[in-house]
Amino acid sequence: MTKDIQTTDVAIIGAGPVGLFAVFECGMLKMRCHVIDSLEGIGGQCTALYPEKPIYDIPGYPCVHAAELIDQLEIQAAPFDPVFHLDQQVDGLTRREDGQWLLQTSKGTRIAARAVVIAAGAGAFGPNRPPLEGLKDYEGKSVFYMVRRREDMRGKRVVVAGGGDSAVDWALSLAEVAEKVYVVHRRDRFRAAPESVDRLHALAETDKLDLVVPYQLSGLEGSDGQLSAVRVSTLDGEERVLEADVLLPFYGLLPSLGPIADWGLSAERNHILVDPASSETNHPGIFAIGDISTYKGKLKLILTGFSEAAMAAHAIHPLVYPDRELHFEYSTSKGVPVS
Amino acid sequence: MTKDIQTTDVAIIGAGPVGLFAVFECGMLKMRCHVIDSLEGIGGQCTALYPEKPIYDIPGYPCVHAAELIDQLEIQAAPFDPVFHLDQQVDGLTRREDGQWLLQTSKGTRIAARAVVIAAGAGAFGPNRPPLEGLKDYEGKSVFYMVRRREDMRGKRVVVAGGGDSAVDWALSLAEVAEKVYVVHRRDRFRAAPESVDRLHALAETDKLDLVVPYQLSGLEGSDGQLSAVRVSTLDGEERVLEADVLLPFYGLLPSLGPIADWGLSAERNHILVDPASSETNHPGIFAIGDISTYKGKLKLILTGFSEAAMAAHAIHPLVYPDRELHFEYSTSKGVPVS
Repeated sequence: MTKDIQTTDVAIIGAGPVGLFAVFECGMLKMRCHVIDSLEGIGGQCTALYPEKPIYDIPGYPCVHAAELIDQLEIQAAPFDPVFHLDQQVDGLTRREDGQWLLQTSKGTRIAARAVVIAAGAGAFGPNRPPLEGLKDYEGKSVFYMVRRREDMRGKRVVVAGGGDSAVDWALSLAEVAEKVYVVHRRDRFRAAPESVDRLHALAETDKLDLVVPYQLSGLEGSDGQLSAVRVSTLDGEERVLEADVLLPFYGLLPSLGPIADWGLSAERNHILVDPASSETNHPGIFAIGDISTYKGKLKLILTGFSEAAMAAHAIHPLVYPDRELHFEYSTSKGVPVS
Repeated sequence: MTKDIQTTDVAIIGAGPVGLFAVFECGMLKMRCHVIDSLEGIGGQCTALYPEKPIYDIPGYPCVHAAELIDQLEIQAAPFDPVFHLDQQVDGLTRREDGQWLLQTSKGTRIAARAVVIAAGAGAFGPNRPPLEGLKDYEGKSVFYMVRRREDMRGKRVVVAGGGDSAVDWALSLAEVAEKVYVVHRRDRFRAAPESVDRLHALAETDKLDLVVPYQLSGLEGSDGQLSAVRVSTLDGEERVLEADVLLPFYGLLPSLGPIADWGLSAERNHILVDPASSETNHPGIFAIGDISTYKGKLKLILTGFSEAAMAAHAIHPLVYPDRELHFEYSTSKGVPVS
């Protein structure tokens, strides 16, 4: 699945607002960029999580919707022809002998770049894992945080854990194919569409589905990664054992560095430590900007990320153009007309 | 001319884009601001020097005119009711016994504030002085960098130095009242409107005005601050002595810290040194942001100043609210609706 190596000046990980502005800032210094994002579209959380949410603290915008801000940043970056690699995660990052960084994505895309800018926001958003002993042994074998194919659950005894939309909707859907569905939730109320909750309660009257409330997960039984039962308990310590083949915890997503955690970057509580004078990490040529980076006094604001993008671009310039001095210019004397 | 002391949380020196955004960032943290500027309107250089100049590197604005950016920043700051003191310079800054800073302006306005934010851009813009021995003795007596009243020059022998608009226009105007006008310029060409240059050459045919080109100023003669003659010379060393009562050097404006230079702030080449983690100067409670501040890696970009404004506001919060912990929130969860 590996593909030809594509070469560029700067590889930017993350196509959120700060990553997009980094394209612009690099472009102003005549550096070309490739941008990789695990989402299917650009914009990061702004478009994926809250496109219609108003933002009030973008300088010069008394109020702007997240999606509109992304549109403007895309237009601003467009003259510099960024190459986007979407719907794929950067799994590997290694240094080549010629000093360039080689990135490899989950889709086999390979990119060689003089510098890497990590603008991954809150990171990869991993699943919120239940604190169960031995959980790791079952993950990917009989414990899953997402359902890839509903058919995989046919004829199985499935425990769905959680009380939100995902838990309710999957419980309803899997009840049609599974032998039995248990829905474990610590409260007896569900945070889902009322119509779906009504259907859930109706199904619970049949033997296809059991509502196990108010219970929470307390243990796993099985061997070699294959579950045989899920233990649940009330706050009072009353316990039940649910015979089951599969556990699906739907406790939402949590920020996580994901594969980035394995790149040897100095980090502090899930954030990458950088030199505030350059946004460079402990690895020369790798920079981190926006919410994923930290340093003394760091503010997690989009506008702070914009400033860091400018700083990183200026710090990268001598890596891309070692022989060309950068004559720094003021805001107003630089720029490309946008048609 | 002193007035009652006005009390506020934060006094911001400079009503340019960065000073205006500081009003917003302080306002978001419930801190009130007074803003002082030497210009008659808000906007700083953006409105005074290049209102119609397009700016390309404001994040989220593929292109914006300087004046439009200021309009938006004014709207963004408006909900926090900043009090503007325009057309006056902050001449004095002293610390009171209660720890508050007391500012006094050239118009006698007095403001007491918990914190001071210097967002004075390129500073006060002083005149570009010719390098002449003893110049200081004559300044304000017979050497002037601006003409307050044309009548003051009636019957005088006036040397106008410079080759730009100001020099040419004042030479034409003063020739009508002065006994004699000399125009000293190091080249024989003038950077002024062609029509004005034509009039200058026509006047030079009369005995009202002499073009002294290509000459530059080389010395002053006189006593007790009163000029008797101005010496000029060519690059080859050829010298002339012009009998004169007044010298008007029009060599443009240069950035200058102005009175700020006397406040004991650590500085480096006309810029105020700050801690990059807070934008605070060596004086606790005094902050500097935007083009006037410097630190390792500093970029002189408007967007950098915006980020520094946010940082300063957060650093000031504990000074204004010593007992209230600031629960920091993300961009998207803060904000006030603007009507």
